[in-house]
Amino acid sequence: MALATGPNAKPPIIPFSSRLETGRALALDVWSIYNAANLPADCINLGQGYMNFPPPQWVRDAATEALNNVASNHYSHPKGRIRLREAIRDYYSPQFPHLGRPLDVENEILVSSGANEGQYACWTAFLEAEDEVILFEPFFDQYLPSITFNAGVPVYVPLHPPSVSAIDPTSDDWKLDFDELERAVTPKTKMIVVNTPHNPVGKVFTREELEKIAEVAKKHNLLVMADEVYETLTYDGKEHVRIANLPGMWERTVTVGSAGKMFAATGWRVGWLIGPPDIIRPTLAATTRIVFCTNSPLQEAAAAGLERAVEFQYFDKTVKEYAERRDILVNAFKKLGLQYSLPEGGYFVLLDISKVKVPDDYPYPDSLKGRGKDFKAAWFIAQEIGVSTIPVSEFYCEGHQGIGERFIRFAFCKDYELLRRAAERLQKLKEYL
Amino acid sequence: MALATGPNAKPPIIPFSSRLETGRALALDVWSIYNAANLPADCINLGQGYMNFPPPQWVRDAATEALNNVASNHYSHPKGRIRLREAIRDYYSPQFPHLGRPLDVENEILVSSGANEGQYACWTAFLEAEDEVILFEPFFDQYLPSITFNAGVPVYVPLHPPSVSAIDPTSDDWKLDFDELERAVTPKTKMIVVNTPHNPVGKVFTREELEKIAEVAKKHNLLVMADEVYETLTYDGKEHVRIANLPGMWERTVTVGSAGKMFAATGWRVGWLIGPPDIIRPTLAATTRIVFCTNSPLQEAAAAGLERAVEFQYFDKTVKEYAERRDILVNAFKKLGLQYSLPEGGYFVLLDISKVKVPDDYPYPDSLKGRGKDFKAAWFIAQEIGVSTIPVSEFYCEGHQGIGERFIRFAFCKDYELLRRAAERLQKLKEYL
Repeated sequence: MALATGPNAKPPIIPFSSRLETGRALALDVWSIYNAANLPADCINLGQGYMNFPPPQWVRDAATEALNNVASNHYSHPKGRIRLREAIRDYYSPQFPHLGRPLDVENEILVSSGANEGQYACWTAFLEAEDEVILFEPFFDQYLPSITFNAGVPVYVPLHPPSVSAIDPTSDDWKLDFDELERAVTPKTKMIVVNTPHNPVGKVFTREELEKIAEVAKKHNLLVMADEVYETLTYDGKEHVRIANLPGMWERTVTVGSAGKMFAATGWRVGWLIGPPDIIRPTLAATTRIVFCTNSPLQEAAAAGLERAVEFQYFDKTVKEYAERRDILVNAFKKLGLQYSLPEGGYFVLLDISKVKVPDDYPYPDSLKGRGKDFKAAWFIAQEIGVSTIPVSEFYCEGHQGIGERFIRFAFCKDYELLRRAAERLQKLKEYL
Repeated sequence: MALATGPNAKPPIIPFSSRLETGRALALDVWSIYNAANLPADCINLGQGYMNFPPPQWVRDAATEALNNVASNHYSHPKGRIRLREAIRDYYSPQFPHLGRPLDVENEILVSSGANEGQYACWTAFLEAEDEVILFEPFFDQYLPSITFNAGVPVYVPLHPPSVSAIDPTSDDWKLDFDELERAVTPKTKMIVVNTPHNPVGKVFTREELEKIAEVAKKHNLLVMADEVYETLTYDGKEHVRIANLPGMWERTVTVGSAGKMFAATGWRVGWLIGPPDIIRPTLAATTRIVFCTNSPLQEAAAAGLERAVEFQYFDKTVKEYAERRDILVNAFKKLGLQYSLPEGGYFVLLDISKVKVPDDYPYPDSLKGRGKDFKAAWFIAQEIGVSTIPVSEFYCEGHQGIGERFIRFAFCKDYELLRRAAERLQKLKEYL
């Protein structure tokens, strides 16, 4: 976002905070460049990660029911509504078996205004000025300014992609170099963010990988933020391992969940954090000031979702549907003979665009000046093929953008019909290979 | 909130940020002390400012309609949904007549996750470390940590209450000393918060008062945050003057509004900011990182509320009802012969408890140790009379708490029946005068 536009823009009479100069907060972001308004009218949007279908009817019905109840139209406790905290306890407690007891709804669960705000509050609660936070690249772009606004410093450790010549790679072929991770730790390091299943790679970190990360965290007394918002979406039998369950990790891990991702309700802004009291209580102190509380009716609906998910076999059905969605897209890539990283989780897939030959004289808007090959390919594919995507170099720090330049991200959290139309359109890419 | 409890509590393995040590963020807050759980089961709750009635049916119906639409279950633009921004433009533009044009939905309106989060984002956007923010006491208690978490420093200027012997005072008898205000300004001052109608006093600042505040803001180039969330509730023909409309003030003022207050939907977490692009754009950059966006279905409902308020004569009816609610309570105070400040706006009334004689040997919980007479009176009245209220010294800085100790706050955003029962119970106070 440009704050002053044009050469004659007057300086603001009240200057804004220097923290806005950090974390790319004022740069023109990738979402604005590839916004529908800048693309052909009939472009199929596989750029942003939201569904083109609604939350399940029975979850929406619970929202309507809540609207008809006085109390669930008014303030919730800053910790979250007790019904939702109890539903979280009942759903998640079996998934933290090492505890040997149910989660404590008063001190180990915190509802937030979307997972995003929960993470922001956690950074507000824990970051001291100049504390370092290790992010694995490519990283979810909201992390960066959320850390710098709270006076933290991001430190980047890349996931290394499969080689250009790799045959049928999967998201598991994106690898951390654990020596690089160890070297990234300094006396200022406070936290590591582990996003699994990973956006945008689709990688589901293995137990062995998580054990190595856990060793680093324990050795240097670091807090781990386990962003597991895609937890219910892993494919081909891949196991979602929670780093909080590894020995000695519960007390230093906060696990992040999202009703929006679970129930196709990205606009409900209901998320949660699970962790030990020493992490949850300070984060509660922060979130209480940031938002006071999360909207009440949709907390009730999210609670109903968790309460009845088993009865409706909801997550089993959902994961099957998402696997089919994924396959529609990857089959299109396969037919094109382009490399992609088959995602083991989440709802994104990365396509290697090294072989796509964009015409040399293709016209780009000024917003693409100085951007990588992925930005150009994403623009070209949106304009000429009619499918919008997101260039992956945006999810790397400046020095590492070359690693991401080979890839564009497709979201497959869309209905079959739209994905099939996109798959068909993508075959036109053949002319440019 | 106590972060470590008991003498044997172990220190946390990951220390929390020092910013939590500021702004009373970790202190046991007044809301927890006077929480229903600590009070008699049948105590009438006039402490917290939420309604015991729901939002209007036609506004709730719009929420249900939004739940049945795919797009309004998914992410909104961080600026807010266009329907709500247009509804805000159409409702408010006539109220900013000096502009001579409609508000610009792209650059002058920002939807936030409750007014609270909008204010927090504004502080994130504008406060440089050690910047000072002037608050008029008594102040809404969320302001304080929201400022300190963003590295700002609150500076307090008290509203001086009417004297103990004043006859039939109103909230207008709470006065700023403009010399005190001028003396509070330093080279570090960045902002003044003006809350009108005022919580908890009920004062609706007069044009003359706002002109004097505006002079100070212009002279020292300060940003003014006009917290006008009770804007639709002014009584006895009192005019709500917007400081943003005074000469030279638009460009330095952000006006804060709230769907929760307007539509009896405090748990919907939909608020908004209105101001010039130089204030709205940096605040957008902040809110985008803090929450990304506000929940979508209830934005649609808030839009419907604003769109159809005139058709339903909603605000006219509402203000009439709230005036009747206010009168039920103040008549009870009058019968008791106790001084109160008749509120000209908002939904709180302050009762002077100097004449209430709490028995010397009355037992109090430890949480009241070292607290003022108002804390004790509020506890006693909750326990013995069965009506819970909030002590007003909480809304003052430490040095000024003596000013607030004379008062307890009653919320009258409750239905007639509950207020009548409270009024009846309060007559028992006669025994203690």
